Amino acid sequence: MTALTQFAALRETFYQELLEFSQIPSISTLPEHAADVRAAADWLVQKLGRCQFTRIQIFETPRHPIVYAEYCPYPDRPTALVYGHYDVQPVDPLDEWQSDPFTPTVRGENLYARGVSDMKGQVLATLNAIQAWQLAGGLPVNVKVVLEGEEEIGSPNLPAFIAQNRALLAADFSFNADAGALAANLPAITYGLRGLVYFELWIHSAQSDLHSGLYGGAVPNAAQVLSDVLAKMHDQNNRVTLPNFYDSVRPLSPAERAELARFPISAAQFQANANHPLALHGETGYTFVEQVGARPTLEINGLNSGYTAVGAKTVLPAKAMAKISCRLVPYQDPDQVALQLQHFLQAQVPDYVRWDLHRLEAGGPAVLLPTDLPAVHALQQALLQTFGVQPVFRLEGGSIPVVSLLQTELGMPSVLSGFSLPDDAFHAPNEKLHLPTFWRGNEALITFFELLATQA
Amino acid sequence: MTALTQFAALRETFYQELLEFSQIPSISTLPEHAADVRAAADWLVQKLGRCQFTRIQIFETPRHPIVYAEYCPYPDRPTALVYGHYDVQPVDPLDEWQSDPFTPTVRGENLYARGVSDMKGQVLATLNAIQAWQLAGGLPVNVKVVLEGEEEIGSPNLPAFIAQNRALLAADFSFNADAGALAANLPAITYGLRGLVYFELWIHSAQSDLHSGLYGGAVPNAAQVLSDVLAKMHDQNNRVTLPNFYDSVRPLSPAERAELARFPISAAQFQANANHPLALHGETGYTFVEQVGARPTLEINGLNSGYTAVGAKTVLPAKAMAKISCRLVPYQDPDQVALQLQHFLQAQVPDYVRWDLHRLEAGGPAVLLPTDLPAVHALQQALLQTFGVQPVFRLEGGSIPVVSLLQTELGMPSVLSGFSLPDDAFHAPNEKLHLPTFWRGNEALITFFELLATQA
Repeated sequence: MTALTQFAALRETFYQELLEFSQIPSISTLPEHAADVRAAADWLVQKLGRCQFTRIQIFETPRHPIVYAEYCPYPDRPTALVYGHYDVQPVDPLDEWQSDPFTPTVRGENLYARGVSDMKGQVLATLNAIQAWQLAGGLPVNVKVVLEGEEEIGSPNLPAFIAQNRALLAADFSFNADAGALAANLPAITYGLRGLVYFELWIHSAQSDLHSGLYGGAVPNAAQVLSDVLAKMHDQNNRVTLPNFYDSVRPLSPAERAELARFPISAAQFQANANHPLALHGETGYTFVEQVGARPTLEINGLNSGYTAVGAKTVLPAKAMAKISCRLVPYQDPDQVALQLQHFLQAQVPDYVRWDLHRLEAGGPAVLLPTDLPAVHALQQALLQTFGVQPVFRLEGGSIPVVSLLQTELGMPSVLSGFSLPDDAFHAPNEKLHLPTFWRGNEALITFFELLATQA
Repeated sequence: MTALTQFAALRETFYQELLEFSQIPSISTLPEHAADVRAAADWLVQKLGRCQFTRIQIFETPRHPIVYAEYCPYPDRPTALVYGHYDVQPVDPLDEWQSDPFTPTVRGENLYARGVSDMKGQVLATLNAIQAWQLAGGLPVNVKVVLEGEEEIGSPNLPAFIAQNRALLAADFSFNADAGALAANLPAITYGLRGLVYFELWIHSAQSDLHSGLYGGAVPNAAQVLSDVLAKMHDQNNRVTLPNFYDSVRPLSPAERAELARFPISAAQFQANANHPLALHGETGYTFVEQVGARPTLEINGLNSGYTAVGAKTVLPAKAMAKISCRLVPYQDPDQVALQLQHFLQAQVPDYVRWDLHRLEAGGPAVLLPTDLPAVHALQQALLQTFGVQPVFRLEGGSIPVVSLLQTELGMPSVLSGFSLPDDAFHAPNEKLHLPTFWRGNEALITFFELLATQA
């Protein structure tokens, strides 16, 4: 019996497991759900047992446990470190859900539940593939598994776990199914993630807010100065004007642009995914796919100054604050960008006000992953065979902290893919998993492990 | 015995009355002080009796009473309507007071107490002058008095009172001592008050805040667009760029500019009054006295968008709000300025966002008072004789709602002066009255009533 045949035989069991796992409200951020998070970890220990891992262990952390497992019988074959998380986002606003978030419900081809796509379904797709191989005579490669319960709260205890378990976690690459597909008929391999650097900028013009009648016109207005400065941070082509901002930005090759142009997403679909903004408008000369994945940005994340409650108050604000962050692309150095912003402010803020720039703890440099690894070739082949189409190599706008962490701490590349779809409503009401894509993903990963063994 | 001699004889009595009146905590905005506000009204009724008014009446309102009195024996002589208020501001922050706000305390030449300058002392200066005249044989002009207990909460019941008592209030002019002097040795007559028009501007770029990693760079950022638009509202000379904004602004004549240049206030003193802003910076080509009194402004009063709490949140704001107000000078029409802002926004806000402009209920047009009235001449002479210096004719930055109200409802001009000083700490801890200026003010008003009778 092949692994794919085993999988076909087990499909109903796997489906029941998916329902069972999705019923556990493992919301990591809410203390009242701590026992549920633990229950999800325990459920995984059972599942890992059915997958015949030879070592299964729960690592306690100050908050939610990390589940570790390994099956490493082949000294000469490649080792994959499968990363996943079993915690989920909160469910509010609850009244926008069409069915209970923890009562998995099928509508059409989709299964609706909190966490079913982000990323319980993705974790199970990988484990099911391993289980099918074991029942078919044995997984042909070495696999280690790290499943954390704190991804949705920023993985506070993962860095220490990785730092303290370097030898345990050693592997050729990490496989992470949290990056998703582009469409039901178009799988993807993500090879770049934008980085982030975050600031808080304060403008001070006076010691205290003043009466705008008595002083307006003569005393500088901090809110006006802040607006003036922020307005200068982009030019008319929506390019960032910080000095030397683009110096280390990797130009997109014609081949990359052609690959990014394969994205099957229309502007209308992209806008629908973004809950219908009024329009798209970004850096001149780039498509929206390039703008959000391959180009750096500077965004105002927040503004606050003066009187903001109901009605009129004739105050002349003494201070004004903006939260500002830059999405970075490969080779941009967050420290350099911080310096560029300092230089910009030195040149642009008028001398009749004071400014303070604070860098906040968030993000890190962009990640550019190798595309010439045996594991990437194996995955590409597996996706092509299963979906009948070449997967798109994509650059993604957000960051996945564990990817930087594994690269920095262990020098380990990640292979990023997955079977979630852009409209799966991650973190939002009515999260769903597209079942046909999920099942194809299970099959693709079975083939992936086979090709990994034979190509390495 | 002349009125001035009577005044000298009564000075100790008047001082005791000032202490007594200042001890009443008539804080109009605090419901627990309603009885104190009433007590201050009752105290005034007694004082008005000592001033030999022939009709004294308390008019009830839904909140705090209005005290009315009249002494009108001369059909052929001018009638003054004395306006004042007997309510005071709250005292917080109490721990910044050096002595109890309702235990009047002398330090140096000043008497410290809440409301002693704004405006209980100013009310008493006027009533003392009347009383001295009565004891010297009779006030030589007709006087009506309106003293309200709600000025510090926006005079909610004054408009109805005025509208319902037009005949009762009929007079040649209103005298209002709430406008103050420029220095202990420099009295002033205020002949212009800036107006105000107030707006709330919203920019909308999306239905909901978005993840800046997934959509940043392609979906417009409402906070950025708002900043861009606000930055365009002034040019490099700090002039307002709304179309036609200055068309109806009255140019300052050389004589007016010379008069405004007599202001005895240095930039250092002005900055001290403003609690030491970092610097002054206003419209090019005008002094700070002109900027705050004689020139219109556009100020941002508040800004709010996206995430403003502690730390980093990578949100792309879907909406951004600015509170914006214009201080108006005489002949600028608030409705026209509202249209000018509409036209500005139509031209300047990019078409990939939506904007809404709401006009808030606040302010009104600027007031320009006649300077050629007999009452103004009489006051000018009286101040010159008493202080030994020509009073400055000044334009003031803030607005005094009752002045517009009397002009609009009754067509009655106001004569604005008073004996408070710029550093009296109105509305702030350690409010004080400069006693030498207060006593000179009493004397000046005695002379004022005499000149009013003889010059008219």
